[in-house]
Amino acid sequence: MSKVRVHNFAISLDGFGTGAGQSREMPFGHAGERLHDWYVGTQYFQQMRGESGGTQGVDNAFARQHDPGIGAEIMGANKFGPPGWQDDADWTGWWGPNPPFHSPTFVMTHRPPPPIEMAGGTTFYFVDAPAAEVLEQARAAANGADIRLGGGATVIREFLTAGLIDYMHLAVVPIVLGRGERLWDNQESLEDAFDIEAISTPSGVTHLTFIRKV
Amino acid sequence: MSKVRVHNFAISLDGFGTGAGQSREMPFGHAGERLHDWYVGTQYFQQMRGESGGTQGVDNAFARQHDPGIGAEIMGANKFGPPGWQDDADWTGWWGPNPPFHSPTFVMTHRPPPPIEMAGGTTFYFVDAPAAEVLEQARAAANGADIRLGGGATVIREFLTAGLIDYMHLAVVPIVLGRGERLWDNQESLEDAFDIEAISTPSGVTHLTFIRKV
Repeated sequence: MSKVRVHNFAISLDGFGTGAGQSREMPFGHAGERLHDWYVGTQYFQQMRGESGGTQGVDNAFARQHDPGIGAEIMGANKFGPPGWQDDADWTGWWGPNPPFHSPTFVMTHRPPPPIEMAGGTTFYFVDAPAAEVLEQARAAANGADIRLGGGATVIREFLTAGLIDYMHLAVVPIVLGRGERLWDNQESLEDAFDIEAISTPSGVTHLTFIRKV
Repeated sequence: MSKVRVHNFAISLDGFGTGAGQSREMPFGHAGERLHDWYVGTQYFQQMRGESGGTQGVDNAFARQHDPGIGAEIMGANKFGPPGWQDDADWTGWWGPNPPFHSPTFVMTHRPPPPIEMAGGTTFYFVDAPAAEVLEQARAAANGADIRLGGGATVIREFLTAGLIDYMHLAVVPIVLGRGERLWDNQESLEDAFDIEAISTPSGVTHLTFIRKV
């Protein structure tokens, strides 16, 4: 059976996956870009932008796991756009004409517009359904490959609570946000279901991997 | 000027320094001993117990920093005893006749009993005063040496908010407690005041050091 995987999901020391006050100008609210500096700095990300350079160490090794073996993505409404994007018929996500998903991508929203076909293999499908049902659709679309769960925090919590995540990679960034969307709420005893490893890197980030116990 | 230092303060991934439901039988509430397995396993701790053996790696190196250069300790009421210890005239702390502080030790409580002199150099003084005032007393008693701030989470937060901590060592343990006393509340932008380093170890713990910027 194909796996459900989370990659490169960054949180602050106090567990926030995004800051407060998300908007079109500030996609991560008051967190700004600080949760993702380590990721933007990797060779993986720089190549995606068509640039050379970038870090080639542990951060990059984790970043690169984003793509291989993935056949579909699931994300929450707040990853796809700023509050109210459903009212903007021209909104096609943050990522320009060729989004980095290159697969059927399922956006969970209570107000689903029609699908949007983008360049590079990404088609956005909008679904108003619980986690398990969305996963069923994504799995059918993925043709036996794995499903990437793209976040944000609310959607990851929903999938964790439903026991639907097989692999989760978090990057803990040494900042304290104080407010925003918290990943850890209502996840008591998560360690019972996962083997957890931690590795800190020279960038100051600590990578955590959660591998579902068999 | 002498420094204020926090050592070996363990928190869960979701930032709890103790679990919920603290009692005489369960000093750390539903967390049990899980926050401190790495610490109890060190050679430093085993020697303190009069035992041989114990780990000698990075965890032990951090554990050993507890003692050198310290002239006084400050702790919160919930570190000294279970809820209601103030009503038990025989309560002298969790640590037996020879507590591991070996110095004047200031316990912050709104109902201060008279001082208690223990073996090994520890005298417990009980004070009902704000952080800065307790620190002044501890500093006078420490004779130029550093002050260790022993926790719990509430007291560390109070000292952080007052800008009174110079060095803080946290050990992040890969468990999710879900409830208890949270260290991170109201600490937004803590990284502006501290240089932060992270190092994970084979025990699964990630050590964080916060060094106040000069």
